[in-house]
Amino acid sequence: MITLINRSLACLAAPICATLMLTAAEPIFSPEVNADKTVTFRYKSSTAERVQVTGDFLPKQTITTDSMTYSIPGVADLVKNGDVWEYVSSPLAPEMYSYSFIVDGNRSVDPANIHRVRDINNISDFFLIEGEASEPDNVTDYGVHDVAHGTVSKVWYKSDKLGKNRRMTVYLPAQYYDNTTQRFPVLYLLHGMGGDENAWSELGRATQILDNLIAAGKCEPMIVVMPNGNSGLEAAPGESSEGLVPVNIDAKHVLNGSFVDAFPEIVEFTDTRYRTITDKEHRAIAGLSMGGAHSKFISANNPDMFDYIGLFSAAMNPHRVTDSKMYSDESEKLAKLFSLNPKLYWIAIGVDDFLYKENVEYRKHLDEKGYKYTYVETTGGHEWKNWRIYLRQLLPLLFK
Amino acid sequence: MITLINRSLACLAAPICATLMLTAAEPIFSPEVNADKTVTFRYKSSTAERVQVTGDFLPKQTITTDSMTYSIPGVADLVKNGDVWEYVSSPLAPEMYSYSFIVDGNRSVDPANIHRVRDINNISDFFLIEGEASEPDNVTDYGVHDVAHGTVSKVWYKSDKLGKNRRMTVYLPAQYYDNTTQRFPVLYLLHGMGGDENAWSELGRATQILDNLIAAGKCEPMIVVMPNGNSGLEAAPGESSEGLVPVNIDAKHVLNGSFVDAFPEIVEFTDTRYRTITDKEHRAIAGLSMGGAHSKFISANNPDMFDYIGLFSAAMNPHRVTDSKMYSDESEKLAKLFSLNPKLYWIAIGVDDFLYKENVEYRKHLDEKGYKYTYVETTGGHEWKNWRIYLRQLLPLLFK
Repeated sequence: MITLINRSLACLAAPICATLMLTAAEPIFSPEVNADKTVTFRYKSSTAERVQVTGDFLPKQTITTDSMTYSIPGVADLVKNGDVWEYVSSPLAPEMYSYSFIVDGNRSVDPANIHRVRDINNISDFFLIEGEASEPDNVTDYGVHDVAHGTVSKVWYKSDKLGKNRRMTVYLPAQYYDNTTQRFPVLYLLHGMGGDENAWSELGRATQILDNLIAAGKCEPMIVVMPNGNSGLEAAPGESSEGLVPVNIDAKHVLNGSFVDAFPEIVEFTDTRYRTITDKEHRAIAGLSMGGAHSKFISANNPDMFDYIGLFSAAMNPHRVTDSKMYSDESEKLAKLFSLNPKLYWIAIGVDDFLYKENVEYRKHLDEKGYKYTYVETTGGHEWKNWRIYLRQLLPLLFK
Repeated sequence: MITLINRSLACLAAPICATLMLTAAEPIFSPEVNADKTVTFRYKSSTAERVQVTGDFLPKQTITTDSMTYSIPGVADLVKNGDVWEYVSSPLAPEMYSYSFIVDGNRSVDPANIHRVRDINNISDFFLIEGEASEPDNVTDYGVHDVAHGTVSKVWYKSDKLGKNRRMTVYLPAQYYDNTTQRFPVLYLLHGMGGDENAWSELGRATQILDNLIAAGKCEPMIVVMPNGNSGLEAAPGESSEGLVPVNIDAKHVLNGSFVDAFPEIVEFTDTRYRTITDKEHRAIAGLSMGGAHSKFISANNPDMFDYIGLFSAAMNPHRVTDSKMYSDESEKLAKLFSLNPKLYWIAIGVDDFLYKENVEYRKHLDEKGYKYTYVETTGGHEWKNWRIYLRQLLPLLFK
């Protein structure tokens, strides 16, 4: 009787659960992170003829076409043992890794892994290699640890300028509720093209990074506001009244300057809704790629608003794509901004980034004018692996 | 130049993006909901030999084994046209549907669909058929509409009894911030076995149901607290310090009574953190399956706490699985509860539910004692399709 109950209860809800019970009587565990930090991938199939795995945990390979050279993740073959295919990786460093299977040439997510993340129109399985307890400072450990956790909310605000109800993600530090009169500084954290208000909390592991740094006393408890930078949209796909449609990337449309123009509404909303400290010394703005462009021009158009500015792999020249008064008179706007001595103007990029050259040019302009900034150059390219590290490096520098 | 920029920007982040650019130069759109409410499923592969789709939008089929008879979703074949396989469904009624592809015998999620939901250890693609604007009352329209939206938060509370920081989902109605002195009633909404604090907001579409009913004036603005009913766990898989492990279903462990015992801590936390109305007349508790058992015994052990109790496909007899003082003296506890005249004791179940019989027995007991309750019997079985409808039916009855 208990067996029958358990079997039925295990199958409370899934519409295709009965099918699974028939076909997957012995579920497999994949991916399994082993004690030596190797990872075992498993795929169950009696009909497949070849099963491969590809992902950023494998050494990259280079592919050259007529027009371009691509660096792409490697591919490894799983070995069949009965009806379970298996591959064991090398020992891996702490990091958030993503991967997919390729089954007889068709890309397939791992049916045994429930941990997935969306990047633009692409879903990937992921896994985490966590750092050792003995190395709590490991900068690429993005695990959830048993520390005080902040509150993460999906919040809607009304944008009069954009004529929409719009959605944002808001992180409130655990300390926000410890003392209900205390006020906090705010970081506005912006995503890149194709991203949305979920990008930093999901792909960026911002929630875990903040929880862990704040708990370790390495950064100030702060509110972090992660808005949706696509000014034509209400919210992430599936979360808006536009229905369940794929992400439409149109650089001319999303870089039209209207998000920059409407940004002060978000600051006003945040200062009204939350216990913020409402001055320049307690406001930061940072973003990646398109969000770097947004951060650069929002701060330049509002020189009294932010004392801390972070540009991660920033698209420095959105005016190349579209015209907007938000992008005009750049030199004059920067002159005004830097005349007010922002406490931190922080630029980070990887040497393989396709935006590296325009970052060199931008820094050259800053150098010529004698504007003070901090520059961090890393390995790697235009990738979340770098942006998570940049966030972790920037946070301890804010509100000091 | 713009082309190159766009191409690069479209590929800002995905680690396997370069691979995709090479293999999926022309992305396909799947599933596509057509104007006549048929749905087109598409799968791209030049190597597959057979592609099928299975899901709850297809008529069910029955499979009989030695020991049991299963009712499982149907399967349909996609037809190959070039390297794109396609299937068009019949016109479908408004509902949240889930499905998977079967490629050469291997289950595969739809690579073109970014909308997925997890049910226990199983990820399914889903799509929504929305109702017409002319029929806003359609009870199975779970779309996001352009109405005032509540705030949905992931919140951690400290459970002294369970010795853990634990995570819950909290819905605050849009009205919560319209008037910052107004206080609100609270519904505690509990998931089933294998579920967690994400189940009602994701599989249950509770957020959309609440937004739409409140906006239509059909239910009272209320706070809804969705805790994690697995007393041994901190949070949903991947959100806790236990790491990225699959869901472990162990009826003896999760139905050990400790969640029932510790529940008053959640009410106390909610009343401290939020602007609640802190009396019985403004508290409701409801849950599905195991959450129905929890709702039944939490209310019976705390007869002064809730005036509204909802049991959806409830597991009435958890004492059959484990023993706990929370389940003891059931008859006496119910006598006390009903002597205080709860305003609503609401029981709903489908005739095909495997818990139907124990619901009949429980109602027989209530009838014998002359206890007043409301009973709703539907078609269907132990499935989210019913639980979403039950929630939508219960909400307008609360706090009247």
